[in-house]
Amino acid sequence: MIPLSPGEVQTLVRAALAEDLGAGDVTTASTIPESTRARGHIKARQDLVVAGLELAAAAFRELAPKVVLEGGLRDGDSAELGAVLLTVEGPARALLTAERVALNCLQRLSGIATLTAAFVHRVKGTKARILDTRKTTPGWRRLDKYAVACGGGVNHRQRLDDLILIKDNHLVALRGASPNPVAAAIARARQRHPYLKIEVEADHLDQVRQAIDAGADIVLLDNMSPDDLRQAVAICRGQALTEASGGIRLENVRAVAETGVDFISVGGLTHSAPWVDIGLDFES
Amino acid sequence: MIPLSPGEVQTLVRAALAEDLGAGDVTTASTIPESTRARGHIKARQDLVVAGLELAAAAFRELAPKVVLEGGLRDGDSAELGAVLLTVEGPARALLTAERVALNCLQRLSGIATLTAAFVHRVKGTKARILDTRKTTPGWRRLDKYAVACGGGVNHRQRLDDLILIKDNHLVALRGASPNPVAAAIARARQRHPYLKIEVEADHLDQVRQAIDAGADIVLLDNMSPDDLRQAVAICRGQALTEASGGIRLENVRAVAETGVDFISVGGLTHSAPWVDIGLDFES
Amino acid sequence: MIPLSPGEVQTLVRAALAEDLGAGDVTTASTIPESTRARGHIKARQDLVVAGLELAAAAFRELAPKVVLEGGLRDGDSAELGAVLLTVEGPARALLTAERVALNCLQRLSGIATLTAAFVHRVKGTKARILDTRKTTPGWRRLDKYAVACGGGVNHRQRLDDLILIKDNHLVALRGASPNPVAAAIARARQRHPYLKIEVEADHLDQVRQAIDAGADIVLLDNMSPDDLRQAVAICRGQALTEASGGIRLENVRAVAETGVDFISVGGLTHSAPWVDIGLDFES
Amino acid sequence: MIPLSPGEVQTLVRAALAEDLGAGDVTTASTIPESTRARGHIKARQDLVVAGLELAAAAFRELAPKVVLEGGLRDGDSAELGAVLLTVEGPARALLTAERVALNCLQRLSGIATLTAAFVHRVKGTKARILDTRKTTPGWRRLDKYAVACGGGVNHRQRLDDLILIKDNHLVALRGASPNPVAAAIARARQRHPYLKIEVEADHLDQVRQAIDAGADIVLLDNMSPDDLRQAVAICRGQALTEASGGIRLENVRAVAETGVDFISVGGLTHSAPWVDIGLDFES
Amino acid sequence: MIPLSPGEVQTLVRAALAEDLGAGDVTTASTIPESTRARGHIKARQDLVVAGLELAAAAFRELAPKVVLEGGLRDGDSAELGAVLLTVEGPARALLTAERVALNCLQRLSGIATLTAAFVHRVKGTKARILDTRKTTPGWRRLDKYAVACGGGVNHRQRLDDLILIKDNHLVALRGASPNPVAAAIARARQRHPYLKIEVEADHLDQVRQAIDAGADIVLLDNMSPDDLRQAVAICRGQALTEASGGIRLENVRAVAETGVDFISVGGLTHSAPWVDIGLDFES
Amino acid sequence: MIPLSPGEVQTLVRAALAEDLGAGDVTTASTIPESTRARGHIKARQDLVVAGLELAAAAFRELAPKVVLEGGLRDGDSAELGAVLLTVEGPARALLTAERVALNCLQRLSGIATLTAAFVHRVKGTKARILDTRKTTPGWRRLDKYAVACGGGVNHRQRLDDLILIKDNHLVALRGASPNPVAAAIARARQRHPYLKIEVEADHLDQVRQAIDAGADIVLLDNMSPDDLRQAVAICRGQALTEASGGIRLENVRAVAETGVDFISVGGLTHSAPWVDIGLDFES
Repeated sequence: MIPLSPGEVQTLVRAALAEDLGAGDVTTASTIPESTRARGHIKARQDLVVAGLELAAAAFRELAPKVVLEGGLRDGDSAELGAVLLTVEGPARALLTAERVALNCLQRLSGIATLTAAFVHRVKGTKARILDTRKTTPGWRRLDKYAVACGGGVNHRQRLDDLILIKDNHLVALRGASPNPVAAAIARARQRHPYLKIEVEADHLDQVRQAIDAGADIVLLDNMSPDDLRQAVAICRGQALTEASGGIRLENVRAVAETGVDFISVGGLTHSAPWVDIGLDFES
Repeated sequence: MIPLSPGEVQTLVRAALAEDLGAGDVTTASTIPESTRARGHIKARQDLVVAGLELAAAAFRELAPKVVLEGGLRDGDSAELGAVLLTVEGPARALLTAERVALNCLQRLSGIATLTAAFVHRVKGTKARILDTRKTTPGWRRLDKYAVACGGGVNHRQRLDDLILIKDNHLVALRGASPNPVAAAIARARQRHPYLKIEVEADHLDQVRQAIDAGADIVLLDNMSPDDLRQAVAICRGQALTEASGGIRLENVRAVAETGVDFISVGGLTHSAPWVDIGLDFES
Repeated sequence: MIPLSPGEVQTLVRAALAEDLGAGDVTTASTIPESTRARGHIKARQDLVVAGLELAAAAFRELAPKVVLEGGLRDGDSAELGAVLLTVEGPARALLTAERVALNCLQRLSGIATLTAAFVHRVKGTKARILDTRKTTPGWRRLDKYAVACGGGVNHRQRLDDLILIKDNHLVALRGASPNPVAAAIARARQRHPYLKIEVEADHLDQVRQAIDAGADIVLLDNMSPDDLRQAVAICRGQALTEASGGIRLENVRAVAETGVDFISVGGLTHSAPWVDIGLDFES
Repeated sequence: MIPLSPGEVQTLVRAALAEDLGAGDVTTASTIPESTRARGHIKARQDLVVAGLELAAAAFRELAPKVVLEGGLRDGDSAELGAVLLTVEGPARALLTAERVALNCLQRLSGIATLTAAFVHRVKGTKARILDTRKTTPGWRRLDKYAVACGGGVNHRQRLDDLILIKDNHLVALRGASPNPVAAAIARARQRHPYLKIEVEADHLDQVRQAIDAGADIVLLDNMSPDDLRQAVAICRGQALTEASGGIRLENVRAVAETGVDFISVGGLTHSAPWVDIGLDFES
Repeated sequence: MIPLSPGEVQTLVRAALAEDLGAGDVTTASTIPESTRARGHIKARQDLVVAGLELAAAAFRELAPKVVLEGGLRDGDSAELGAVLLTVEGPARALLTAERVALNCLQRLSGIATLTAAFVHRVKGTKARILDTRKTTPGWRRLDKYAVACGGGVNHRQRLDDLILIKDNHLVALRGASPNPVAAAIARARQRHPYLKIEVEADHLDQVRQAIDAGADIVLLDNMSPDDLRQAVAICRGQALTEASGGIRLENVRAVAETGVDFISVGGLTHSAPWVDIGLDFES
Repeated sequence: MIPLSPGEVQTLVRAALAEDLGAGDVTTASTIPESTRARGHIKARQDLVVAGLELAAAAFRELAPKVVLEGGLRDGDSAELGAVLLTVEGPARALLTAERVALNCLQRLSGIATLTAAFVHRVKGTKARILDTRKTTPGWRRLDKYAVACGGGVNHRQRLDDLILIKDNHLVALRGASPNPVAAAIARARQRHPYLKIEVEADHLDQVRQAIDAGADIVLLDNMSPDDLRQAVAICRGQALTEASGGIRLENVRAVAETGVDFISVGGLTHSAPWVDIGLDFES
């Protein structure tokens, strides 16, 4: 994965703390003496693939610059139920106040990494690789995709500006504009953006052939049956990469992978990964 | 629910578009003529409770101030599979470019509202009401809680500054500080923050009694069995409200509700609600 | 008081310096050699209660990360005329350039703390406690309320989202909506926001009784005479807290406190506290 | 005064509303029906000079773009007790929610304008004009100085970059650097910043003469007795403008003005002006 | 070119006005009556290709929402010396105050577009196309590249995240890491980022062959002689696109284009394009 | 020059990195091992005057807080072709990723400083000094003017709020308003802004005399011939400073300087200075 820069981490964590603290942690400030120190362990309460350790660490450091943080794991590592992801030691107030922001970052990103890893595991041995999509929570595009990479997935485009992807609705809008709207669209796009790859969505095998003829680099095979996927792969072989999408679940991903597609994109990696269970327990 | 202000909506949608567009939608700008117009329908592809309509509308309006938007639904309404949530008509480019941001907002928030409504439905007829938590995606606290309210849930505290909530780790940190640390903590907190309610976490019935004796307004009953919950409710009756939490799922929420608790908090409403399926189809 | 986080402090101080410096301190940069060092003392030029020391310190540190800061006081401490609040030593340029921002923060917040402490002092021996309001300078809500706490006051709600407070204009807007609009409003508010306390404004004793009957947690007694306040306190005893407000000055606050009210809110703490006199003198 | 731009107004008002609303106005949203309309009058509850009308108007417009606003006054106008500054009509919810932000802006700025006008009134008939200082609340420099201008005052420098002003602490830092540090400093500053005027602080008449000899455009006469001021004015006549400062109050400003100084700077205009009393009353 | 969104335009123009106005336009506010209206013409004072019209228009609109703007040109159009680019009519104050921001945007972007068009003109009839680089003024990447497109140029990568481009310093850093570091690097990059094209810098023909063997999509031919460029083109034919770079000027670009390269990248388009001469003349 | 504050530097560099990195440096992250270290030299590839060293240093430090930076130069120093401006040593990834932002800042600002120094050199021996203008790239006003000062130039006004400058279009707008519009405008401006100098644009000698009679501090002599400039200087002697502007180039600046004007303002210093050639070479 592309490492997070210190600036990215600080910006996100400061915003998260501002959102969660508002005028401050009234409970902690009014009940815990300033001098009380504590030591706690952030533990995996289920098997998981970890992502977001630097965000969690930064949350504590923001409130207590001298907090001591220990831990041997790195983003992308697997952890079993009970494993300690991070040990924190410092002023009890800072640990209590930063706890939820640290966990929210860690649980969300590890959730995405863990679900991604499960998909990657299912397709092991095939050539298919698991892709994310742009179905991410606004504000979290960079981090959600980072977590997918931590889980072993591959990043699809980051934004609307780094890949030409001609989809359904584009084709509807182009209908009637020319005898072969896909070919015309690809030609125009390549002319304007020669440094970007071009992908075209196809719902039927006819459209796959059209896309290939028009010179697409990648064909997005949307909601096709395994049989159609196999035929599409055969059509594209040596001419374009293939990406299957639509309705992919853990239950059916293997079958899709075995059709020979290069990529399988799964919106659910980022839009519906349940958070993993991670908690902070103070040493008593 | 507390309505979203125009400023909140614009701020979020502008940031989301900036994130998704980067330097712009290369596909649309290079393939679709500026003068092409389109009309499309945002449709529910499953039964759902809608939330986020204003965000979706704002995404289109940001890029095409004169876009025409029609739709009879309001946030909090139920929609059946196939229902049109919003019809958009305007420049094809703006519709294509804003589509994903509009859907990302709508799918996420409607997902939360829909899951909340399912929990609310399960406890119908009991006095229990469904609460959210602070387990929200950083940056989305306000909106996630708004969606919970759209689904019929009740908002727990918004931040660390609007409720005193003394939890496990506070008690660990206070251990040894006084003969009765809960009572001392409550006294200090009430002294400093008399305009806020006070809630105390209890894992055992003993702690419930302590909390009541110390004058808690609400007792958080964490991970208790239905039997213990029932006893806790009896202890608290007339003296404090009760909130059950920990491991609540659609499958067991009814049993918990039937113990007589006032509230049931469910982190999963915001941290693990799958997005609902909503799509934009252009009229051809 | 709820301590200021390092992030809050840096954000405010950076903005303040940017506002005051613009393109930079032309006087200092053009007249003082870069290598000149200086040592100065920030002194109380009147008796005061100090608040904002961390902001002052941060202003110097922003411009000279290695500046040496000494001082034995903490926010909330009293200082007599002539007392040194902070000694700064470092590059003369940074000290001269940061001086006004440091003093502006310190003089304003100490002004609020000092005025609050004067009110608190006047009511000593009664049960009444001094409250702030939302009459704060936009952008300074958090800090103004922090300073009130430094002066021994108690914070009323921070924002419109952490207390139900039904005021005059709400009642006018509700007029005719139901036979007992206060009771109806309280019922709706409690239903929606069970984690928040409910306060109701009353201008007459009748309204006090209505509020009590409707179950208000706190009654805001607006502009009542001492006699009425006493009767209101009697009506509320054991059922609701009482807050006196309206026209409270140092001269009359004791009389109000002696009526037995729980709280006295004073808008002037934040909206009209004169700054205290504090200056920075360089050692010659 | 330099008019406020629409962008300045919107930026400030949005930030103020975000600060005051947090997650929203829970009271209003839970008690007032969305369809209720209201009409109210923002009235002067004392004699005052008004400043900030556009900010108040913008606060209502932010929440209810179609609100109807009427009023015949402009910033800088005088209003007597009871005068209507602004009439607002629209959704009751928006009026109730925006009320405090609107009033906070208006009361603060009108407070500054009113106090300034009082000082200006006291010196009428002399040549002295009333100046503000940099003793403003961080974030409010522009607006505080705008309000001074509304009250008939003159703006001193806006920031550290638009005037050379050599003060006490500069002179201490320069001590020993050259035989005539003031002259050297002025020479260097003029060389570097020929487009800016140069002012020098003087505590004694000797320093006044030095400043004049060194070519200062303005001499800041700090904490001088009326007699010394008169002599300083005589020394400066025809060679430099004079500004009296230090300990100026309404009670003594006339005496200072009658010494013949050109300007009198009063920190209290911005740092200690009490807010004026202004309220919003709904029509019943 | 990818059209600018209304949000992009407003954000930039507001920031530019804030920077240029500070506390406001003291000259205009103090000398021009508020009611004075004016009409002026923004004219080309040289032949040019226009870019930035929407920014100029937005600058005036920000200060005078009802300003009337007329003009028949669009970004990318050519204009001859004397041509009117935009006619503005409205309050004289707003026109005078917004003038410089409007012109700064227009002169800078039109300067880039004009220089680009000159390069494009020089290579007409060859297959070579003119590219920009990442040598843009921080904060202006999007707009500088927009202006290049207005001038007929093609955009190279927008950022470090939308193209794999292995340059000199990468190869130095990889030296010794494997027998064939280029091949290894390309393999790793393609594995991680299959949706992006891969470009490799080559200084010698050997490196061109290595890049081709390793499967590069594009070869960056840095500072090669026309002869070497021709040979490199021959090596790459049918296997990779070719981009010439380094020391390209108007004087030598034709010679480079005639070697048969696909693209010629010119840092100077964005880093050293002189502004074109454009002025605003009021009608007298 | 007025030194850059650490906050200014960090804010600009963070924004520049965010703009350039987007989701990150895909090339470096996928090809260079995290543990690889490198050492490189930022070298002048032409003679130049350096400006922006702190920005360059900050770019590397943002990504690698422990990077080692060496170099003996300071902003404003001259450097010959081949001179090392800065040596950087640290993680190869950080150096590669920050390289362009560091160079973009350094090349742009050094370009402005170098061009300014060339103008300054041409007028050596005359009394004329070289001034910048407000023709700066939006967002870069402060830095562009800083670079002018590094090159030995003098800063004209920073913004519209720190000098009264009555230009052509003001006079057109004032036409007919009074018998002597310049005198009236100056009187009004001085009344309102006594702490600012006043400059008036003059295109003809008549206007010069008018400006002098009206008491202007500075006269802007726009597009005058050397003969007219000489006469204007004579008219202004002892009464106002003179600034020549319009069409000044390296070729004709000496002739203008020899007319005896005090200042010569050159828009091209900031709007059209070509970047200087500076590169980063890794040690191999």
